[in-house]
Amino acid sequence: MKGMMMDYPLTIPSVIDYAAKFHGEAEIVSRTVEGPIHRYGYANSHHRIRQLCKALLAQGVKPGDRVATLAWNGYRHFELYYAIASIGAVCHTLNPRLFPEQLIYIINHAEDKLVFFDLTFTPLIDGLADKLPTVERFVAMTDASHMPESKVDLACYEDLLGVQDADFAWPDIDENAASGLCYTSGTTGNPKGVVYSHRSTVLHAMAGNMRDTLGLCSHSVLLPVVPMFHVNAWGAPYGCAMAGAKLVLPGAGMDGASIHELIDSEEATCISGVPTIWLMLLDFLKTNNKRIDSVEQVVIGGSAAPRSMIETFQNDYDTRVLHAWGMTETSPLGTVGTFRKAEESLSDEEKIQLQLKQGRGIFGVELRIVGDDGKELPWDGKAFGELEVRGPWIASGYFKGEGGEPLDGGWFRTGDVSTIDSRGYMQITDRAKDVIKSGGEWISSIELENEAVSHEGIAEAAVIGMAHKKWDERPLLVVVPVDKSNPPSKESVLEHLTGRIAKWWMPDDVQVVDELPHTATGKISKKTLREQFADYSWPS
Amino acid sequence: MKGMMMDYPLTIPSVIDYAAKFHGEAEIVSRTVEGPIHRYGYANSHHRIRQLCKALLAQGVKPGDRVATLAWNGYRHFELYYAIASIGAVCHTLNPRLFPEQLIYIINHAEDKLVFFDLTFTPLIDGLADKLPTVERFVAMTDASHMPESKVDLACYEDLLGVQDADFAWPDIDENAASGLCYTSGTTGNPKGVVYSHRSTVLHAMAGNMRDTLGLCSHSVLLPVVPMFHVNAWGAPYGCAMAGAKLVLPGAGMDGASIHELIDSEEATCISGVPTIWLMLLDFLKTNNKRIDSVEQVVIGGSAAPRSMIETFQNDYDTRVLHAWGMTETSPLGTVGTFRKAEESLSDEEKIQLQLKQGRGIFGVELRIVGDDGKELPWDGKAFGELEVRGPWIASGYFKGEGGEPLDGGWFRTGDVSTIDSRGYMQITDRAKDVIKSGGEWISSIELENEAVSHEGIAEAAVIGMAHKKWDERPLLVVVPVDKSNPPSKESVLEHLTGRIAKWWMPDDVQVVDELPHTATGKISKKTLREQFADYSWPS
Repeated sequence: MKGMMMDYPLTIPSVIDYAAKFHGEAEIVSRTVEGPIHRYGYANSHHRIRQLCKALLAQGVKPGDRVATLAWNGYRHFELYYAIASIGAVCHTLNPRLFPEQLIYIINHAEDKLVFFDLTFTPLIDGLADKLPTVERFVAMTDASHMPESKVDLACYEDLLGVQDADFAWPDIDENAASGLCYTSGTTGNPKGVVYSHRSTVLHAMAGNMRDTLGLCSHSVLLPVVPMFHVNAWGAPYGCAMAGAKLVLPGAGMDGASIHELIDSEEATCISGVPTIWLMLLDFLKTNNKRIDSVEQVVIGGSAAPRSMIETFQNDYDTRVLHAWGMTETSPLGTVGTFRKAEESLSDEEKIQLQLKQGRGIFGVELRIVGDDGKELPWDGKAFGELEVRGPWIASGYFKGEGGEPLDGGWFRTGDVSTIDSRGYMQITDRAKDVIKSGGEWISSIELENEAVSHEGIAEAAVIGMAHKKWDERPLLVVVPVDKSNPPSKESVLEHLTGRIAKWWMPDDVQVVDELPHTATGKISKKTLREQFADYSWPS
Repeated sequence: MKGMMMDYPLTIPSVIDYAAKFHGEAEIVSRTVEGPIHRYGYANSHHRIRQLCKALLAQGVKPGDRVATLAWNGYRHFELYYAIASIGAVCHTLNPRLFPEQLIYIINHAEDKLVFFDLTFTPLIDGLADKLPTVERFVAMTDASHMPESKVDLACYEDLLGVQDADFAWPDIDENAASGLCYTSGTTGNPKGVVYSHRSTVLHAMAGNMRDTLGLCSHSVLLPVVPMFHVNAWGAPYGCAMAGAKLVLPGAGMDGASIHELIDSEEATCISGVPTIWLMLLDFLKTNNKRIDSVEQVVIGGSAAPRSMIETFQNDYDTRVLHAWGMTETSPLGTVGTFRKAEESLSDEEKIQLQLKQGRGIFGVELRIVGDDGKELPWDGKAFGELEVRGPWIASGYFKGEGGEPLDGGWFRTGDVSTIDSRGYMQITDRAKDVIKSGGEWISSIELENEAVSHEGIAEAAVIGMAHKKWDERPLLVVVPVDKSNPPSKESVLEHLTGRIAKWWMPDDVQVVDELPHTATGKISKKTLREQFADYSWPS
């Protein structure tokens, strides 16, 4: 028996319709690439989005076509998010920090028809343009007076918009139609395309606005420092419009001074970003003796937030840290560290211990951890296995089927290894490919590294599993000394670790190096490190 | 092009799964019909729900079958909500306040297979049982020691449950499958069945938990005084489980003393109900000099909240009133009166004026008002027309197609007449069938009545449109005097109205009666009143 409720699809245009009708004056504030601050309300944005829809159609964009953006967080990027999806096309956000070869691969793989770009990236476009056969037009996101010199025949965003009126009705859209595309680059193989749908995007925004998730509302002022090319700025452009929250977009200015200036002038209540960004902001605040008193909530994701960062934000700046976890394939909200009522009575130390975890499950995302044998592990905060997730905003595969089969019996394999405690809080302990498998048991490389760097002579540390005759793998600790002329001895390192880790986790050897290899995004490249130690053999 | 996100249905069992996993200790507290307070957590409830699923299957319930409940707000009713829907059957909530003939019609129309009932209603079941041919079993919602005397061969809830274990996996459920059924009784014609789906129920709960709607979270303690047989207690059993909020169910005790006792002992933070209930509570509080200091939020719906009630709750009891509007066909949340940031700077009087309205649109419900000619009217707070709504939790028709065609070009015709102001706040001005159509323009009967009762000699007032040769209809004001031996004169009433209403709204006559006819739910029955004045003719 069927329900008798309206067959009303969940679509992205309905979000901006709502914002325009009920929060038309709520602002989107942008630091532009051209320089000045731009501000307008959702009603004005809605007007320009409809003009942009007509401009896209005039360029020959058809439902299902991919239209790429290479842009910072700004109002034109916001307009593109909505307009591209609202004509049934797919908004493909490009990460400008990728190597040119990766961008070429991604744009060609996606078969992007148009590429919209911020002025910052004109030299990049100049270098790429003749290697992108599917791209029919490159559009500079600016007005006629700011058009850049280029060897490419560029179109101008405001000119395309200016010739269109806003008399446009959204076409019918299937809620399961593709709306967005974002590539994720693993350490091996080609980048893989994650394809969001209207349904997944709307549900993710609704879940994010639930009070215990991020809880955005019409009183919120969100400044997403996380870029709109990183998993849709964690959903900010959708969540804010749906809540009628003010959205503050920082453009290219990610440095501490620029972010602080925007927080201060726009009275941001919520800021979101990765730890690296917050280190820069906190450093700026301390050095310049500045405050961020309007901020109530700091969302930290992307990689683990260090304890000192959480404590500084909370104790010195009177904010609340929400540690969160997600990935491109999870839209990205997977877990968020809002305290339940039951946690409020914990001691400060117990609370910090919980906040160091990546948060608890939110409605809409099922979690489980599975061991090597594929069996589910208990939620005791100790057992760790590969984290698997399931839900309406979790990827079921990759674009064109290229990128492997990510599902395990309907569950998405995250490649993260984690624990889940009895309260439902999840903590990442490793990447699956970095975990060390010793005698059928797992050793967390991250935990070993965290303990190693607390040795006063160690600046940076990495642990890799090396083949071992008896135990399959054993941990090798590789350290960069603080003082290269006086590195710590193996004995002093092992002595330091004694009592801090399980006995059988003790590294079988310690190697000193001048520096560790890093990836483009600043993480230690264990793949390269393993290659460097390919010829290593255990001390006999 | 399709999105590549999981095809993961929105279903009711996923809500209780989430609550059990992440909020297993959060409580459901019930005042039982048997007497004592019962309390347990979502994890225990989840266990019993799975037992109940097996019990229902053992009774032969199949997907799509209707299973009825005749019960107060309590934990067994909560269990039935989830268990019935989770095996793919349809939970049909019966309103025990209906006349027996209506109940017989409804149960037979729904073809209910089982009827679960609270002990309170044993006499009612005794009287109805032999007129309900489709019902195979009547189940008393109690344990063996409390089984009532009855001429009907009753089953016992706890006995059915007790023989089952909880080893049960939910079957696959289509999110568009029917999950609930609730009849709405108009003033004319037979009751009409509204059929909720899993999808509509889950989306409605998500929207309700968004911060600017009701904003339930794990810190909330919700006491729904609105019954679970009234549009699913406005979604409380779903919203609370999804948020991990504590749910306090008051059983049969709707009087001021009982409600106050529960608020006080359970520290309710949010209470929801109709104005009649709140009059009783406020009267109790005042008479007994009691407080409700834990309450942060009072949700008022069902009919318009009077100004004095809003002010008393806010000024004397330091709570925040959320005036809301909805109906059985809208699941029910349609509009909610949370202030946007823009409203915070208004004066106290301006705020009260806004709170007297039924609230602003929430994400997921589109609103419009249309005039007699079917054209959309402006959002200026003055123009009024029939309110029409659209969205994923709005009815598209009635069970078995019986109840007429409620849609107008895809929009649900609410039968309410309202204004919408430029802020998006909606205010009901009339029922469509009660509005007075004079010379092509509409006169609001409710506004006239509100102004009339502010006359010191008038206790109650009703305005009906009476046929008029020149103007089609003109308003007739019918009043109940405060002092029946000394009713106010027509002249004094019209003089009182002068300046308070538009000139052309002035009633053409005033009639004094000893009492006005009321419906079973306490509203003035204008249908009966029009019948009583069928032979009336205007003074010449």
